[in-house]
Amino acid sequence: MISAAIVGGTGYTGIELIRLLSAHPEVSIDLLTSRSEAGTRADEIFPSLRGISDLVFSDLGNETLSTLQQCDVVFFATPHGVAMKQAEALTQAGVKVIDLAADFRLQSLADFEHWYQQPHACPDLLKTAVYGLPELNRDKLANALIVGNPGCYPTTAILGLKPIIEAQNQQANRLIEARIVIDAKSGVSGAGRQASIALNYAETTDNFKAYGVTGHRHLPEIEQGIAQLLNSQFTHRVRFLPHLVPMIRGMFSSIHLELTDAGQGVDWQQVFENSYASEAFIDVMPRGMYPDTRSVRASNRLRIAVHQDNERAELTILVVQDNLVKGAAGQAVQNMNVMFGLNETLGLNAAPIVP
Amino acid sequence: MISAAIVGGTGYTGIELIRLLSAHPEVSIDLLTSRSEAGTRADEIFPSLRGISDLVFSDLGNETLSTLQQCDVVFFATPHGVAMKQAEALTQAGVKVIDLAADFRLQSLADFEHWYQQPHACPDLLKTAVYGLPELNRDKLANALIVGNPGCYPTTAILGLKPIIEAQNQQANRLIEARIVIDAKSGVSGAGRQASIALNYAETTDNFKAYGVTGHRHLPEIEQGIAQLLNSQFTHRVRFLPHLVPMIRGMFSSIHLELTDAGQGVDWQQVFENSYASEAFIDVMPRGMYPDTRSVRASNRLRIAVHQDNERAELTILVVQDNLVKGAAGQAVQNMNVMFGLNETLGLNAAPIVP
Amino acid sequence: MISAAIVGGTGYTGIELIRLLSAHPEVSIDLLTSRSEAGTRADEIFPSLRGISDLVFSDLGNETLSTLQQCDVVFFATPHGVAMKQAEALTQAGVKVIDLAADFRLQSLADFEHWYQQPHACPDLLKTAVYGLPELNRDKLANALIVGNPGCYPTTAILGLKPIIEAQNQQANRLIEARIVIDAKSGVSGAGRQASIALNYAETTDNFKAYGVTGHRHLPEIEQGIAQLLNSQFTHRVRFLPHLVPMIRGMFSSIHLELTDAGQGVDWQQVFENSYASEAFIDVMPRGMYPDTRSVRASNRLRIAVHQDNERAELTILVVQDNLVKGAAGQAVQNMNVMFGLNETLGLNAAPIVP
Amino acid sequence: MISAAIVGGTGYTGIELIRLLSAHPEVSIDLLTSRSEAGTRADEIFPSLRGISDLVFSDLGNETLSTLQQCDVVFFATPHGVAMKQAEALTQAGVKVIDLAADFRLQSLADFEHWYQQPHACPDLLKTAVYGLPELNRDKLANALIVGNPGCYPTTAILGLKPIIEAQNQQANRLIEARIVIDAKSGVSGAGRQASIALNYAETTDNFKAYGVTGHRHLPEIEQGIAQLLNSQFTHRVRFLPHLVPMIRGMFSSIHLELTDAGQGVDWQQVFENSYASEAFIDVMPRGMYPDTRSVRASNRLRIAVHQDNERAELTILVVQDNLVKGAAGQAVQNMNVMFGLNETLGLNAAPIVP
Repeated sequence: MISAAIVGGTGYTGIELIRLLSAHPEVSIDLLTSRSEAGTRADEIFPSLRGISDLVFSDLGNETLSTLQQCDVVFFATPHGVAMKQAEALTQAGVKVIDLAADFRLQSLADFEHWYQQPHACPDLLKTAVYGLPELNRDKLANALIVGNPGCYPTTAILGLKPIIEAQNQQANRLIEARIVIDAKSGVSGAGRQASIALNYAETTDNFKAYGVTGHRHLPEIEQGIAQLLNSQFTHRVRFLPHLVPMIRGMFSSIHLELTDAGQGVDWQQVFENSYASEAFIDVMPRGMYPDTRSVRASNRLRIAVHQDNERAELTILVVQDNLVKGAAGQAVQNMNVMFGLNETLGLNAAPIVP
Repeated sequence: MISAAIVGGTGYTGIELIRLLSAHPEVSIDLLTSRSEAGTRADEIFPSLRGISDLVFSDLGNETLSTLQQCDVVFFATPHGVAMKQAEALTQAGVKVIDLAADFRLQSLADFEHWYQQPHACPDLLKTAVYGLPELNRDKLANALIVGNPGCYPTTAILGLKPIIEAQNQQANRLIEARIVIDAKSGVSGAGRQASIALNYAETTDNFKAYGVTGHRHLPEIEQGIAQLLNSQFTHRVRFLPHLVPMIRGMFSSIHLELTDAGQGVDWQQVFENSYASEAFIDVMPRGMYPDTRSVRASNRLRIAVHQDNERAELTILVVQDNLVKGAAGQAVQNMNVMFGLNETLGLNAAPIVP
Repeated sequence: MISAAIVGGTGYTGIELIRLLSAHPEVSIDLLTSRSEAGTRADEIFPSLRGISDLVFSDLGNETLSTLQQCDVVFFATPHGVAMKQAEALTQAGVKVIDLAADFRLQSLADFEHWYQQPHACPDLLKTAVYGLPELNRDKLANALIVGNPGCYPTTAILGLKPIIEAQNQQANRLIEARIVIDAKSGVSGAGRQASIALNYAETTDNFKAYGVTGHRHLPEIEQGIAQLLNSQFTHRVRFLPHLVPMIRGMFSSIHLELTDAGQGVDWQQVFENSYASEAFIDVMPRGMYPDTRSVRASNRLRIAVHQDNERAELTILVVQDNLVKGAAGQAVQNMNVMFGLNETLGLNAAPIVP
Repeated sequence: MISAAIVGGTGYTGIELIRLLSAHPEVSIDLLTSRSEAGTRADEIFPSLRGISDLVFSDLGNETLSTLQQCDVVFFATPHGVAMKQAEALTQAGVKVIDLAADFRLQSLADFEHWYQQPHACPDLLKTAVYGLPELNRDKLANALIVGNPGCYPTTAILGLKPIIEAQNQQANRLIEARIVIDAKSGVSGAGRQASIALNYAETTDNFKAYGVTGHRHLPEIEQGIAQLLNSQFTHRVRFLPHLVPMIRGMFSSIHLELTDAGQGVDWQQVFENSYASEAFIDVMPRGMYPDTRSVRASNRLRIAVHQDNERAELTILVVQDNLVKGAAGQAVQNMNVMFGLNETLGLNAAPIVP
């Protein structure tokens, strides 16, 4: 059994990790920490865990740190800036670290410090961190000590673009015009479990809005993913605009691409099907189908539909995921499975909840 | 024109008052105060007011108080305990006060102090305050200086029981068994516009729960209303249980009564229709119809359905209102209309919003 | 492996059965039928099943019947009146039948015909059917050929009252006054997957209403459950009123009881804890806690809170379940586990989905 | 008083027309028709109208037609294809016609027949019809006999692009690259009041999806609006993708534009403010603000935010409206006001409903 700890278990990614890891046949959650709820049972905060977990939140003091160092893996379900302060002590003790916040997502120190407005606590470790998108970095993950679990939006964007960029890499002509518009929509749980008037039920229900118009932290992460994939002279400009949907879970990214004449000659449905044929969690829907977010609710599945309209030179990629699962905790468990040499789908096979 | 002020305009009853009074043909809102948002335009906080209101929030300092004293009426859309501290200075200046919080609802000082856990700031004024349910106290309201605007639940409970208690008053036999179960449900806006994890969208949506099982502050207010109506040896025991419904606005009270043999001989539909025949805002639905909360959304209407089942000795009264209108701001405006001798429906005729 | 069939797989209980049985380690779904969708893959109707199930809907013709007869168990997730027409052919072939509709719930033929307005197709078989509430009828279920899976409301009502009635059975004095008010609330999925204006999103969202005021089919089922438990001179009168909550899943029953003096001497929390100590799916919450429906979302758990207020002679039992799981498909699987001698919790251990 | 009739009053645009016209000081609704509900009072179908309207639905037979011919204006809140069959008889009688469906939106007969898959019943009248977007066609509307009330999406798209195209018309250089991406989102009421599994609450709540990927009927209407505005060599290619949001009312269009170097030199906020300075219903929000759909709920206001990011050459226009008001019934009333020479805002001044 893998001994796991979850630092910061009172947020939505925290409880989702508890839910997933409690059902994982090869993992034991041995420590759960929370600054604000130290001493409280997890199932007092989340009665849904009654009968599922007996864990009690610990404070993240020195004693706890020493306990953490005896775990095999520590998940940080904390705000940005926490994991990087603990990472050195843990990795030196041989503990693998999976940070669900942003401390190890951006490989560029400058980008991190620009977008997160704080110095990085361990720039050297950052260089060794692996961006935890298994469909992109499966090999590196196998030996990773520190994993930066991707942001929710970038997961949909990068996986929605990967087959296209890889197809482009193999062509002398441009297939897709340079400008990529990613119009993305997220359920409210993506904003976290926090007290905020703006997140109050009566403020968000029966309502829809955009945010982050002039720059969202997930944009550099999307650009980094594209850059990693790109092996071509044909670069791209990404327009990323997130919106808030009155739903609990779910993320929907509408990716608008313009086909060149050469691009119109490609059968993009086939490209996607080939690209993801061996991926357990990526479902390329049949031609003409539409994904909806509920079809992946509470599941680690990410669904993609490819709509090609040569008459209008349009290629539209629609991507859905559960922002808390494939967009956060599920992906973290998938990463853990890879890091520990387990079957990648272990503990992640549950069917989506519909209706 | 009546010069009105709203103290505490940043909550849901506050913005609802602004919405209603802005459309009132005989009222001018001359002052709007907020401790937290002083200096900010109301339409910055609530962009829905753009083009509707140019008001800027003032702080409630000495200068403001002096301005308040020049108004004709001051609405307090504040937490409990604020209005009672200002009431004396205002009423001495001849300003009428309508408190949408609880400071002037309970006529018993002991009850107030027990349920609200604070001493009352002006017990003498409390004696002169009128409970602002026009259908109960229309005559007293005409000359009231201070009005305690009813709680949302008590409005549905008292108006749902009034015809029954009045019918009982005229009978020598018991018509209804002593125990009255009021199972009530409220939309989330009833909890106010506040930052609270428990009110977060992802906590309240797709969810239903009870609260206040062992005692809700609206119970003594319901009991007070019944006591005022009661003129009979046949007293009642009220069980009041509130629940939280994942909807923005709306309140639904299911009142469960048991008919005696004598009570089965009464045509309760007729009793209700007669009782409310002249009330502009109370709609007794035809036999067999069901009210739903959306049918009064954004309106001052309160709808009642009377379901009598002699076979099972059941009398069920279903009452709906918009908790922010008839349950708060609309009722306050209705009270103001009565207090100033205006047509009671002035500014309150808008149709409900459906869908 | 148990060979199972689902007749009528396109409704919400149907897809929930597919979801649960697909993850059940001892079951293989070998047949899925639908009149309206014959020939269509289940995952075309429900894309959430893509990668989970390859099943194709069959029509329920003669050929299918012969295939059904080779199964070990057939679940009917059909409208009322379908299962009773097939039950004889199946049970004669030794196939166990679990009907999620009402054909085998009411043991009284007269009650069935009164409430469902149709003659019963197999009155003799009805006598042998077991009411599928394992917490009530576990022993009988072990040998049952036909199981009438309980209605959703009755499950909450009967399990919310069972410890009380059993306690009463052992006392010479009345503990609880005769009148029991069950004010129940259900999510919209309880109305089924059907095309209906009344169930349209824009009709049900941000709305709350009661229905079935003058008689709901689940009332005789609740009364039957109470009658089965009752072994005392102290009978009860049940008032049952259902409401529709704008949420997908979830059921909440507020049971209002009045304590006699003797009843006030009982520690009801303890009574419930003792009564359900060995039940895997029934969670009696600690004193003072409140259940909410999301705490059991997508789980077979039923949660109960006991609130006793001697000062007001009130005993309030709050019961939550997922109407599609413990209220339907989960309970059916639990019944199947009992009927086939499996561990009762097999395939039903998944944690609730929160948020 | 203007004598008005509403043909097809049982849909959402129908009830919204009843709501708005009932409060209009210069209009009397003299006839209401419905095929399916003939003989029924409107307030039986929509109890929210109890006390607001006494109207009874008539069938649309010959007798009714003759009554319609005595009205001043007839609103068609019917499916596509109904108004064009009645238009000739009405206009010959001097009755003005406002069709809320699509019969008179597209001026090109070929476009109409291609997108709506039916021959047009009165091609000659079509040539005289005016596209009822007052901000575009105010002058023509003053003398119009037949008005095609715009689709909801085109209203947001055309008004969101109008200032840009008009600015472009006056420039020798391209300001905006040719490709315009309109990623639009609508509340569920936009799909109409119909019985459909896909619109069932449990199918649409907590869910998000795209539709019409390969061609939506509102696209040619958007293109027609752009073409009307365009007076420049610089044409545009529009990508229009609609989505369904789990909310009742509200429409949000995110318009993604790419600025040329010349376009970066323009202050687009100022362009929009100037362009709409005299429009009563169009609110250009201050720099940096975000619109949300609830800020226009139940109101005829359309709100626009202009976000210009020269660093990334992005111009993002965010447009919100209530799809049933400015997107349908409110715009129809606004058109009527213009057609009858009334103050354009008459009956349309109510504040949005927030929360």
